Amino acid sequence: MNVRLEPAAVRGFRFAGVAAGLRSERGRKDLGIIVADSPAAAAGVFTTNRVKAAPVQVAQEHIRGGRLRAVAVNSGSANCFTGKTGIKLARDSAASLARAIGCDTQLVAPCSTGVIGHLYDLEKYRAGITDAVAALHADSFADFATAIITTDTHAKIASVQMKVAGSAITVAGCAKGAGMIQPKMATMLAFIVTDAAVPTPQLRAILKHLLPVSFNAVTIDGDMSTNDTLLLLASGAAGNRRLAGRDLANFEQAVSGVAETLARELVRDGEGATKLVTIEVRGARNAVEADRVAREIANSPLVKTAFFGCDPNFGRIAMAAGKAGVAIATERLEVSVGGIKIASGGALNVAALPAAGEKMKQPEFGLILNLKQGKASAQVMTCDLSFDYVKINAEYTT
Amino acid sequence: MNVRLEPAAVRGFRFAGVAAGLRSERGRKDLGIIVADSPAAAAGVFTTNRVKAAPVQVAQEHIRGGRLRAVAVNSGSANCFTGKTGIKLARDSAASLARAIGCDTQLVAPCSTGVIGHLYDLEKYRAGITDAVAALHADSFADFATAIITTDTHAKIASVQMKVAGSAITVAGCAKGAGMIQPKMATMLAFIVTDAAVPTPQLRAILKHLLPVSFNAVTIDGDMSTNDTLLLLASGAAGNRRLAGRDLANFEQAVSGVAETLARELVRDGEGATKLVTIEVRGARNAVEADRVAREIANSPLVKTAFFGCDPNFGRIAMAAGKAGVAIATERLEVSVGGIKIASGGALNVAALPAAGEKMKQPEFGLILNLKQGKASAQVMTCDLSFDYVKINAEYTT
Repeated sequence: MNVRLEPAAVRGFRFAGVAAGLRSERGRKDLGIIVADSPAAAAGVFTTNRVKAAPVQVAQEHIRGGRLRAVAVNSGSANCFTGKTGIKLARDSAASLARAIGCDTQLVAPCSTGVIGHLYDLEKYRAGITDAVAALHADSFADFATAIITTDTHAKIASVQMKVAGSAITVAGCAKGAGMIQPKMATMLAFIVTDAAVPTPQLRAILKHLLPVSFNAVTIDGDMSTNDTLLLLASGAAGNRRLAGRDLANFEQAVSGVAETLARELVRDGEGATKLVTIEVRGARNAVEADRVAREIANSPLVKTAFFGCDPNFGRIAMAAGKAGVAIATERLEVSVGGIKIASGGALNVAALPAAGEKMKQPEFGLILNLKQGKASAQVMTCDLSFDYVKINAEYTT
Repeated sequence: MNVRLEPAAVRGFRFAGVAAGLRSERGRKDLGIIVADSPAAAAGVFTTNRVKAAPVQVAQEHIRGGRLRAVAVNSGSANCFTGKTGIKLARDSAASLARAIGCDTQLVAPCSTGVIGHLYDLEKYRAGITDAVAALHADSFADFATAIITTDTHAKIASVQMKVAGSAITVAGCAKGAGMIQPKMATMLAFIVTDAAVPTPQLRAILKHLLPVSFNAVTIDGDMSTNDTLLLLASGAAGNRRLAGRDLANFEQAVSGVAETLARELVRDGEGATKLVTIEVRGARNAVEADRVAREIANSPLVKTAFFGCDPNFGRIAMAAGKAGVAIATERLEVSVGGIKIASGGALNVAALPAAGEKMKQPEFGLILNLKQGKASAQVMTCDLSFDYVKINAEYTT
């Protein structure tokens, strides 16, 4: 399976991205739509933040039926903490696209990303929908991906083409934001479409499986957005036979591959990020404990500034692991950074620190912490905490 | 009650702080001792991090008897993640002071602060103990306070003098580190001594009461040290009658006042901190939920960079509150910054944002979030996340 960082046409879907004037930057694309030729099987997962944006609430309601004709995404405003007016705005937005393509409003999922607490102009939105529908094209996936980004430095796109259950299929996805990193620009949004024929229950199962190893396995600053949304749509245009056994596994791997790639790209483009670090915790008594330790390390500002400073600071790593509330036998703890063992058997390997520091100068490296208590493991991707993170989030305020 | 940021003599105790050569900076004080004329009632609380430094383990064991003759604190090395060698070093360190003052080793609590994973030179330590014992003086509290600091910009000292249960008493305390902020220099250490006559069970109860409103109510970066230690010693030299009722309440208030003042000073001197922010969550269903929401706000890097940038960023505050896992009715949420209401009734008060931004330019301000769901509240003190935090923790590595 070969995941490419490129868009692809996906039979049964058309895409568009236009400048509707919803953002302050003139002429910048800010409204993207995905339209299926006929209702596609659809599944979604949404933020678990207790403060949920209006479009999240409406999209959750609309996707319950397991089918969608279209997705409408605006950037510039998160339409969050906007009360009943916000809910009405999200419904009216979905309705405007539904009307334009001739389907029920329930078949359109609205998504928003941008500043919290602000509404957007419905009239401009409606005019933008008209433009977007006119611009719909099978080859415009990149336009859609570009319209939904905010502080991202570029659109994140990934696709896979493969043969499954007797048919050539395509899976294409895009994502914006950097996970929990930029709630001012409120969101991680990701959309994955495929022409494979996959019933909704299978899509839901696939989403459930891929989440822990993709979007839920990245953390930038531990901050969780109010608008996070991941939608997976299958048009069925590939005409493949029903997926089962090895075929289902292969397809699931393709979708997972696209999701993992997008998640990785989000971290790489994280605010101020200069390094992508994969934190792997091994030898835990169970997966929950492994995950908790990995996240404490990944989210510790002291560990993240040490990443930035290329400092194999074992003390900070041990401190972060220790505060996960998981029993730790320090005499067994083993830690390696960039493949260099810096601590084991209860002692720091001082001689190895310079070499580990060298490895940390690379744009991507791994940190492995072995608790040596069991067989469970967990992996989390994160980035460093740099001057630019502070700059972006403190200086450039709105 | 008047808490002063000054040292005071406390009958029944003598203090010293000397340069024993345990730190790389030549001539800098790095070994401090407190010695009671006779065994003092003593109580302590220690880090809940699962990775505990050797001296923490030994001090916990020694304080179990409820009495201490002395405390020996070194800076430069945390003696953490040092295995059995570290435990032996902590015991030998306590023994050297015990021998010098002629008491049982069990009556000496060893404490260390500094780099994790490194030992210190026992011979230098022993020579330092000899010097320190020779230098012991009732007026040398400030020397002790200076010997235990690491990256702190200055020693933090607070004292209270008052009349309790028929006698004039003094409570004096000092602290180092900035709570959970600098585990490289591994620690928050605090010592409070009094000449009041207070039995150990009462001391323990007082510590239990004061913790939530002092040291446990501050957070710099959510990072929890491996060496955190707070000791409270009472010599009884004041000869007061047994504390009960109003007297006990007054005494408890004095100790609490010293602890709160020290905690506040720690945050004010936090790494890179330019502002002290008090986060108060009101209207929660219970205290646990209030505390959880307050801590999510206080520890969110996005909220903290907004503090640094004087940006009354409601979106980030709401996001942080929402990820505490506490049910939130956004239409009831009320938030004020620096006394200016920036959101209420489910809507952002856009007109008030500039005034709130002005208030945030002050070195100290409050943020109040009212959930309007109940009557419980919680308060946490924190600081902003600045360029200097990244600089200190990324550039100046060892």
